[in-house]
Amino acid sequence: MNIDKFVDSLKFDSNGLIPAVVQDAENNEVLMVAYMNRESVKRTLTEGRTCFWSRSRQKFWIKGETSGNIQVVKGFYIDCDKDCIVVKVQQTGAACHEGYRSCFFRQVDSEGNETIVGEKLMESY
Amino acid sequence: MNIDKFVDSLKFDSNGLIPAVVQDAENNEVLMVAYMNRESVKRTLTEGRTCFWSRSRQKFWIKGETSGNIQVVKGFYIDCDKDCIVVKVQQTGAACHEGYRSCFFRQVDSEGNETIVGEKLMESY
Repeated sequence: MNIDKFVDSLKFDSNGLIPAVVQDAENNEVLMVAYMNRESVKRTLTEGRTCFWSRSRQKFWIKGETSGNIQVVKGFYIDCDKDCIVVKVQQTGAACHEGYRSCFFRQVDSEGNETIVGEKLMESY
Repeated sequence: MNIDKFVDSLKFDSNGLIPAVVQDAENNEVLMVAYMNRESVKRTLTEGRTCFWSRSRQKFWIKGETSGNIQVVKGFYIDCDKDCIVVKVQQTGAACHEGYRSCFFRQVDSEGNETIVGEKLMESY
């Protein structure tokens, strides 16, 4: 299958985006969730490094381009509805801009109490 | 913290929804991604079973209510921006309505070719 044909087969939302769950290829920890547009999907697949569309900055974004915390693609998966992506990666350093290995560093209990459970590797970036 | 205060602290999108990644608590496999509204978040936390908001059917949805493939909550996590949830669950049967253990049963290579890699447990439901 041609790469453009694959990208055409995806269901992007009304903003032209599709959510991507980024998972550590070694231990399957979920590191972050971000959004891809057509170009990000294509470049993530063909270049083997994750890239996204930043909704807050409204720009194309290669993960780790400024921080050095890049993500090398080890596996790319698509769900039944073709409206969500999972990317397994080899993560360099912290995936989270707050310096944690994973963005999901807070656990919440049944009463709504939050506890920090994640591993902090560095200061915020 | 009060549960309502926690729910208030989340960043729901313009449709009042927040994406939730559902992960197998045993092996960290990503089983599905679905959306929660305020009520789903609250009930998932307090009742210990996942529930969502179905965007296609526009209704509240307790996972497994008709299929029996319920998800018992083992851990609930929130990301740095408070706009995405991870729920670790004990999954009964197939998470995917196509009968696969995980909705992410297709791997995609750098040329856009898809291969079924997931475990099929039952017929579609």
